[in-house]
Amino acid sequence: MASVDPVKKKGVDAVFQDRLSRVAQDTEVLLDRLLGSRPIDGELARPTRLLEAMRYASLGGGKRLRPFLVVESATLFHVSRPSSLLVGAAVECVHCYSLAHDDLPAMDNDDLRRGRPTTHKAFDEATAILAGDGLLTLAFDILSRPETHPDAAVRLELVSALARSAGFGGMVGGQMLDLAAEGRFDALPPKLRDQDVKTLQAMKTGALLRFACVAGSILGKADQVQRAAFERYGSALGEAFQIADDLLDVEGDPATVGKATGKDAAAHKATLVGVLGPAAARRRLESLVIDAQAALNNFGSDADVLKAAARFVATRRT
Amino acid sequence: MASVDPVKKKGVDAVFQDRLSRVAQDTEVLLDRLLGSRPIDGELARPTRLLEAMRYASLGGGKRLRPFLVVESATLFHVSRPSSLLVGAAVECVHCYSLAHDDLPAMDNDDLRRGRPTTHKAFDEATAILAGDGLLTLAFDILSRPETHPDAAVRLELVSALARSAGFGGMVGGQMLDLAAEGRFDALPPKLRDQDVKTLQAMKTGALLRFACVAGSILGKADQVQRAAFERYGSALGEAFQIADDLLDVEGDPATVGKATGKDAAAHKATLVGVLGPAAARRRLESLVIDAQAALNNFGSDADVLKAAARFVATRRT
Repeated sequence: MASVDPVKKKGVDAVFQDRLSRVAQDTEVLLDRLLGSRPIDGELARPTRLLEAMRYASLGGGKRLRPFLVVESATLFHVSRPSSLLVGAAVECVHCYSLAHDDLPAMDNDDLRRGRPTTHKAFDEATAILAGDGLLTLAFDILSRPETHPDAAVRLELVSALARSAGFGGMVGGQMLDLAAEGRFDALPPKLRDQDVKTLQAMKTGALLRFACVAGSILGKADQVQRAAFERYGSALGEAFQIADDLLDVEGDPATVGKATGKDAAAHKATLVGVLGPAAARRRLESLVIDAQAALNNFGSDADVLKAAARFVATRRT
Repeated sequence: MASVDPVKKKGVDAVFQDRLSRVAQDTEVLLDRLLGSRPIDGELARPTRLLEAMRYASLGGGKRLRPFLVVESATLFHVSRPSSLLVGAAVECVHCYSLAHDDLPAMDNDDLRRGRPTTHKAFDEATAILAGDGLLTLAFDILSRPETHPDAAVRLELVSALARSAGFGGMVGGQMLDLAAEGRFDALPPKLRDQDVKTLQAMKTGALLRFACVAGSILGKADQVQRAAFERYGSALGEAFQIADDLLDVEGDPATVGKATGKDAAAHKATLVGVLGPAAARRRLESLVIDAQAALNNFGSDADVLKAAARFVATRRT
């Protein structure tokens, strides 16, 4: 029996949804294993309450978009699925740590996340801080393991790229700028220009999404041209993700979105929707989707599902 | 002119103090460079306020005992000083992040550290949380850099060992147990036994000190016997450090110690001094120093300064 191209048979959006939910399931199983109660070599014990909070902050929710981006792009370079899933799990640890810390009363002070109490609400502030610290540290543990990739140089490149995406020159710095943009500190001018907001968002949410898009090409030892294509794809997708997120905050229904909406305006957050207005922001969103898709043209139909992912990111309703 | 052994000429304690202060100076210069304002490859920008808080949390204070332990033990394996100083700086980033987070109101709620306001007092809670996150992430960036060691496998082993020492099975888990031991949660029995306190302290402060003691042998690709010697040295030194710290809290003068004292008893902290009483704790401290020193007997006089360091850790007054 000849194999049938699933994209042609079911349509690319259905295949994207299938693969997204399969990665989500596999990531859940993997994180559950990584966050088991038995200490591994080099550890002394895994305290129950901390483990429970780390599991709460990372299991049982989320679309797992970042792991999907790692795994799907890695398949273009024939990387084994266990390998790319581990990198996806590491990225998800960083993502979930950032949510646990950003939700804290001293930061964005959110009580609700994915329709559930945030980690500090379900536990307490100290436990939420430590759970975030533990998840961030675990990400680097995972990347350093031989099963993540047989080549030490590849693992090191992932450690380096993740650290710079997530650190003070990336995600953490972006959260600082975001708090500053609320007018809490004098680090930023009170009225942000278009370019300031782009930098802020490229750091706060863009850097980790871009890493997720580039990690597959690192794992697959892709050449510079291929890697640059994924950097362009990841940058456009990251910006599109944030604009879509900001539009949801303005127009979304809290019951569907799973967290409070209308918070950006209340907190005087810096968003492109706020700077440009919803109509212009939506036009920009559309051009970013087209740019993300164009970046992958050289990969032919192999990249169809990633192109669908860019469209999904821009049009998601939750 | 024949070279004169400095240990014989000046006495080992004076040489130890010289080397400790030289490592402290070199670490200060190195951290100042690592925390410069220009973003490096893979970063977008380094927000000023965040950078200032990370510099505040990590520069201008501290004995730099952990970097000293890395550098001094690395010299036994002929590791280059720039290499071991980078690993020392990474350990110090982790140490300083842990202080910034542990001092937070939701955790130990300390206002004073090294005689200065704690990071959240000098800035604010959100900035202190992010500065800690940034320092932790930077540690892994540093370890992944080629200048840290030419051999990728060595850098990866450092990443792995640091992650496990610092993470939920090590330092972060120890802080969780410490908060639990205050009776805030029901994760621990209200009366801790000797062994529970040892595990708690081996995780909270011991794991990172042990990593600092072992890192030199990893950098120097030492054999298993040599590495085991440094693990034994590091374990004993870590436990000695914590007992000395707890004795200081009971008996020290806040003006000399540079932070509030008498806090452990007030917070019902779990300490060996509390469990055993000061006299028995001091006897244990003495036997730990002897054990740490004995662990390095095979290295002959090359290890004299590290042996002096073990004595210093047990008898320090600040």
